[in-house]
Amino acid sequence: MAEKTNSLAQLSCPTSLPAKDTIVLGHGSGGRLSAELMRSIFLPAFENPVLARLDDQAIITVNGTRLAFTTDSFVVKPLFFPGGDIGSLAVHGTVNDLAMGGAKPLFLSAAFIIEEGLSIAVLRRVVDSLRSAARNAGVEIVTGDTKVVEKGSGDELFINTTGIGIVPDDLELSADRARPGDKVLLSGSIGEHGIAILAQREGLEFECPVESDSAPLHTLVADMLTVSREIRCMRDPTRGGVSSTLNEIAEQSRVGIQLEESSIPIREEVRGACEMLGLDPLYVANEGKLVAIVAPDAADAILETMRRHPLGGNARIIGAVFESSSPIVTIRTELGTSRIVDMLAGDQLPRIC
Amino acid sequence: MAEKTNSLAQLSCPTSLPAKDTIVLGHGSGGRLSAELMRSIFLPAFENPVLARLDDQAIITVNGTRLAFTTDSFVVKPLFFPGGDIGSLAVHGTVNDLAMGGAKPLFLSAAFIIEEGLSIAVLRRVVDSLRSAARNAGVEIVTGDTKVVEKGSGDELFINTTGIGIVPDDLELSADRARPGDKVLLSGSIGEHGIAILAQREGLEFECPVESDSAPLHTLVADMLTVSREIRCMRDPTRGGVSSTLNEIAEQSRVGIQLEESSIPIREEVRGACEMLGLDPLYVANEGKLVAIVAPDAADAILETMRRHPLGGNARIIGAVFESSSPIVTIRTELGTSRIVDMLAGDQLPRIC
Repeated sequence: MAEKTNSLAQLSCPTSLPAKDTIVLGHGSGGRLSAELMRSIFLPAFENPVLARLDDQAIITVNGTRLAFTTDSFVVKPLFFPGGDIGSLAVHGTVNDLAMGGAKPLFLSAAFIIEEGLSIAVLRRVVDSLRSAARNAGVEIVTGDTKVVEKGSGDELFINTTGIGIVPDDLELSADRARPGDKVLLSGSIGEHGIAILAQREGLEFECPVESDSAPLHTLVADMLTVSREIRCMRDPTRGGVSSTLNEIAEQSRVGIQLEESSIPIREEVRGACEMLGLDPLYVANEGKLVAIVAPDAADAILETMRRHPLGGNARIIGAVFESSSPIVTIRTELGTSRIVDMLAGDQLPRIC
Repeated sequence: MAEKTNSLAQLSCPTSLPAKDTIVLGHGSGGRLSAELMRSIFLPAFENPVLARLDDQAIITVNGTRLAFTTDSFVVKPLFFPGGDIGSLAVHGTVNDLAMGGAKPLFLSAAFIIEEGLSIAVLRRVVDSLRSAARNAGVEIVTGDTKVVEKGSGDELFINTTGIGIVPDDLELSADRARPGDKVLLSGSIGEHGIAILAQREGLEFECPVESDSAPLHTLVADMLTVSREIRCMRDPTRGGVSSTLNEIAEQSRVGIQLEESSIPIREEVRGACEMLGLDPLYVANEGKLVAIVAPDAADAILETMRRHPLGGNARIIGAVFESSSPIVTIRTELGTSRIVDMLAGDQLPRIC
């Protein structure tokens, strides 16, 4: 795994060895370095129980109403890619972070950091896409900000979206709630967003072009919650892919998670691209998929509901939670052997979102 | 005025003539170009009544609770300056935008875009400052995000903070509520933030160094609202300074505003620096001052209250609102003549916040 990861790191961003005291691209990868930065800098500084849950969204209570609150900056490169662009991604990413907390997304802010010299036509195209994505997701952009930096001090366009949603009173989803016996559900095939970005960036051509799976997952989540409240937690496996997401859940719940390789849906083009590039699809980013940990007796009903939703047609049970003295994620390969699925170690693919 | 502005633009950022179809630094200045971008791109795209109010914060209602919601990205250069840094500024800026809507600030998100190679010690210093500022302002950082971009694709560190506050039920503050006869209050001396940044950036040395006035204004606002609800609107005159803020209010309320130059407090060092640099202090950014438009019969009581607050000791009535067929801001100079105070035309001082 480590070798595979490194080979891509070299392909996409040949950098010198990281010094321990400076920020490297891997600190933004969503993997081990990101987690270290979180633990060493951010968590101690802002110590509070809401942030310490380390979920994709904060759940806060204002006047008795439970709100989900989440922020994401988007620095994806290139701005436009097959299946989406930075505008639609900025909506989907934040809508999904709200949805993973079981929230109904309501309002977004949108803040633009623009590099001097960006074409206004490009800005307009991104803003139009952001607007369409917001409309389709039923959220309103109610406040915004624009900053401009000198040429060479940015990279075309960065967007921050921050979202507010409303969470049902009786709902408790959190990455520390996985229990032995629980099932791991995945809403569809993996790796498409990362491969689409990489292909676009590196000018790779496939017979069947891979499109990003970028999509808003909140209606899928709403359907799942209608059929059962026996969902422990949900996550959208973006940076660092399914492997990093499941490692975080294993870590926070102090459990093991065993995956079945044969159950994980991967489209043929993605599998081929990953083989060619020396990538493990478990580490490649998704922007329209979710992983859910659910109580064993609720798994089938939830799965059935997911499959009836347009974004869950290919949903599967991909594994189960087991008791473990230390947090671990393993996978039983199609050959019947088992291996450890570690957290992403370095920088796999920078600026994926 | 235009000439003065241009002379600084040349001093701080010699750029070629802006093409009409690309983004220039002035689009981020908070002046006329920013307003044009807002009107031509963002407002039409996101048309909704909340955004169209063009206030510093959105007021949204969730489950019957009125929330203020505001976002700001901070790209200030340098990261550290006399009187503050990007961390404290990121808290004060967003707290103030909430406060200007009369909200009690409660929660902030913090999202970091870090340029590869930033020293972790610098990041830690900024995060510590952000933490202290949040604690002092009584707000909690409950959610965050970190992205890393390649060296040369950013500029050390950009921070977005987005804030949520709670607004009293019976309070309506908005820039379209100024009425002829209203008084214009200013909480203290102007121009300190902009001059502190500029001095630091350009290596200018003054006998008495100018410090940024960066400060959280929400307790000052709370005091003002306790004494009277006859406040029409409040604004913190940041980018574009007092002139741009008052022009926006005049525009949205369809009124004229007349200022008295002799009433506007300006510290001697700031006045001297502005003269030396060919700047008009009315256009220089503040980060710890507010402008309030208040009903005439409430002005004295509000002023008295402001003066008892540590951040309002130098508060003044600086002008009044008058009926006008077209929105205009004028100033009666100390010589007794009158001139128009237009909106900032180009880019005065980029990356001030």
